[in-house]
Amino acid sequence: MTPDFAWLRRGVVEVFPQSADVNSESLERLLLTTNQPLRVKLGIDPTGTDIHLGHSIPVRKLRSFQDAGHTAVLIIGDFTARIGDPTGKSEVRRQLTEADVVQNAQTYLDQVRPILDFDTPGRLEVRYNSEWLSGLNLEKILELLSTMTVGQMLAKEGFADRYRKENPIFIHEFLYPLMQGFDSVAVEADVELGGTDQKFNIAVGRDLQRHFGQKPQFGMLLPILIGTDGVQKMSKSLGNYIGLSEHPGQKYQKLQGVPDNLLEQYFELLTDLPLDQMPENPRDRQTLLAWEVVKQYHGETAAQEAKEAAQSGGKEGAVPEFSLAGVQQFPTKLAYILNVSGLCKSTGEGKRKIQEGGVRLDGDRITDADTTFDSPSELQGKVLQVGKNKFVRLVP
Amino acid sequence: MTPDFAWLRRGVVEVFPQSADVNSESLERLLLTTNQPLRVKLGIDPTGTDIHLGHSIPVRKLRSFQDAGHTAVLIIGDFTARIGDPTGKSEVRRQLTEADVVQNAQTYLDQVRPILDFDTPGRLEVRYNSEWLSGLNLEKILELLSTMTVGQMLAKEGFADRYRKENPIFIHEFLYPLMQGFDSVAVEADVELGGTDQKFNIAVGRDLQRHFGQKPQFGMLLPILIGTDGVQKMSKSLGNYIGLSEHPGQKYQKLQGVPDNLLEQYFELLTDLPLDQMPENPRDRQTLLAWEVVKQYHGETAAQEAKEAAQSGGKEGAVPEFSLAGVQQFPTKLAYILNVSGLCKSTGEGKRKIQEGGVRLDGDRITDADTTFDSPSELQGKVLQVGKNKFVRLVP
Repeated sequence: MTPDFAWLRRGVVEVFPQSADVNSESLERLLLTTNQPLRVKLGIDPTGTDIHLGHSIPVRKLRSFQDAGHTAVLIIGDFTARIGDPTGKSEVRRQLTEADVVQNAQTYLDQVRPILDFDTPGRLEVRYNSEWLSGLNLEKILELLSTMTVGQMLAKEGFADRYRKENPIFIHEFLYPLMQGFDSVAVEADVELGGTDQKFNIAVGRDLQRHFGQKPQFGMLLPILIGTDGVQKMSKSLGNYIGLSEHPGQKYQKLQGVPDNLLEQYFELLTDLPLDQMPENPRDRQTLLAWEVVKQYHGETAAQEAKEAAQSGGKEGAVPEFSLAGVQQFPTKLAYILNVSGLCKSTGEGKRKIQEGGVRLDGDRITDADTTFDSPSELQGKVLQVGKNKFVRLVP
Repeated sequence: MTPDFAWLRRGVVEVFPQSADVNSESLERLLLTTNQPLRVKLGIDPTGTDIHLGHSIPVRKLRSFQDAGHTAVLIIGDFTARIGDPTGKSEVRRQLTEADVVQNAQTYLDQVRPILDFDTPGRLEVRYNSEWLSGLNLEKILELLSTMTVGQMLAKEGFADRYRKENPIFIHEFLYPLMQGFDSVAVEADVELGGTDQKFNIAVGRDLQRHFGQKPQFGMLLPILIGTDGVQKMSKSLGNYIGLSEHPGQKYQKLQGVPDNLLEQYFELLTDLPLDQMPENPRDRQTLLAWEVVKQYHGETAAQEAKEAAQSGGKEGAVPEFSLAGVQQFPTKLAYILNVSGLCKSTGEGKRKIQEGGVRLDGDRITDADTTFDSPSELQGKVLQVGKNKFVRLVP
């Protein structure tokens, strides 16, 4: 009996190395022959706080590996995040502080919790790459650097453009692919997942594993998701994104507006439904897509509420409202509003939630427990959120 | 009274920064106004065992600073030597072992001992750059690397040629100028001496000192000496060199053969004689040059002997001979020959000297105490040497 590898192939752009010869090394062959769980690596840079459906794609694939009995090795690039990956960027990214990175990492884990299996023993390892990178000394770093030439590095897509345009490339940026590659050595990865822009970095990992006497990992490349505008890749800064921390009602609304030409790809990449169950009619496709994705992140009840709200035509209907008239005087502290709006049981709990990083105003995290607003106009129309599931829209 | 800076200017190609404005920052102004000894850095890479007169030029300038009351900071690049300076090289240099480097460093110090003031307190600091480089962690290294761009690095002479010719440049080579620059930070150098090929590296040191809040050093560039062929730069591999460890007779002979067009530069760079005392007649110049240089390294008696030997026409007259007929049987150990030739007092002392690295055969250091020769023909005509001053020529 040949196992069904549909889960493995679904939505994948490329697996490498992939020989034409069926008897030679391949990932499917390895999956058939291995007698222990494979170590499947996904590295993430905690450089931002908001994760969107585009980011979820390799995480969902990671879950599929977990469900097939393998070990997801999720690497939080707390060390590398402080440099910034120049891939595809035309400018150098600002360096983050350690505090930024710690907080971003926690937010990331909160947001991927609905996707991954955090509970079954042996199915998830969360590792921080400062564990092995912060202790590297100059001798070891020279060894890493000596495995690659400047020409190879400058041939990399992001660098090639910048070098041609004479935009500065700082030398420390060359370390990024090598550090990511060394992560594969450190965790002894069998497979690394990533977007199609990660091919170079994953290949560097293969080279370094070979250099250090390990069997090189397979690379599995997944698509970069096109955003809700149907044109550019999904990105917070382009405003064409659907964030994992968004309210179910907002998610539902946005998914219902996904352009027809993207529906099939969204179905393939963001749901587990067999593609032959995809409705013919584009409107039905949108509705089913919205339902499936919201259910995934928030459960069936929330999906049902979001669906009903959308059907009733209320654009923001699924978010309960709180009238700022209930606030007796301004200036007032946010912690007090958290209390009177019913999101927290007391002003003290409100302060604590803010300090724990669990409070957002229109998606932006608030961390100062003494945050104060001078007038209702600063708050009107915004969504105040505590944790993943408690929201109110502030109205006059 | 304006001090005489003739010693400072002699044989110097460039001092930088050097403003046209006499009131602005200049090295001479610093020398006039400082109330404490300047720290004058010379870094050397213990990558080879033989030092020649070309290498002696910045060391002699360092001595001039010592004589003016300043502190020579001689940096043995024991760490950097293990990478190889790509400057002006068209290929990557092999990496040396730690043992190579330790031995080369000792040899270097032995050879520069006649030039520098090792005795006056406060005039010499010998530092090994592993002291500060081996402990650098990735975070600090990223800081160093982030101070320069790939474009700046590839503009450097040695790299530019190699990149244009598509010869591989390994990324770890980019660290060399930064490590040399960080040496200046570590020792808080006020001045760095070097050949004209060191301008880039010394300038990197200035940038790094500024980055770390120090006053940037001055750079003083000295000529690259042309070899005894009168054409190419002095180099052991080109055979146009005069080694500091060569026998006084050999030195004298070679200096007497220096081409006329180089005599003035050799005088300026290799002796302390006022240039107006340089004889008119080229033959007299050669003789005086040979005398002065041999006297510097071996003392007046050795210079006198070398001169007489040269006058008597014996091309190798100054080296005593030992007949291999005195060796009773072959194969024989080198340690035994050291004994019977009178260079050592016993075969045991011979072995010890070999192990200490003090024995050379035709300039090549022998380090295996069990070195054995099968027949006299392997030794005939060669010069066997123990330490700096004991030589015999092995004859049939």
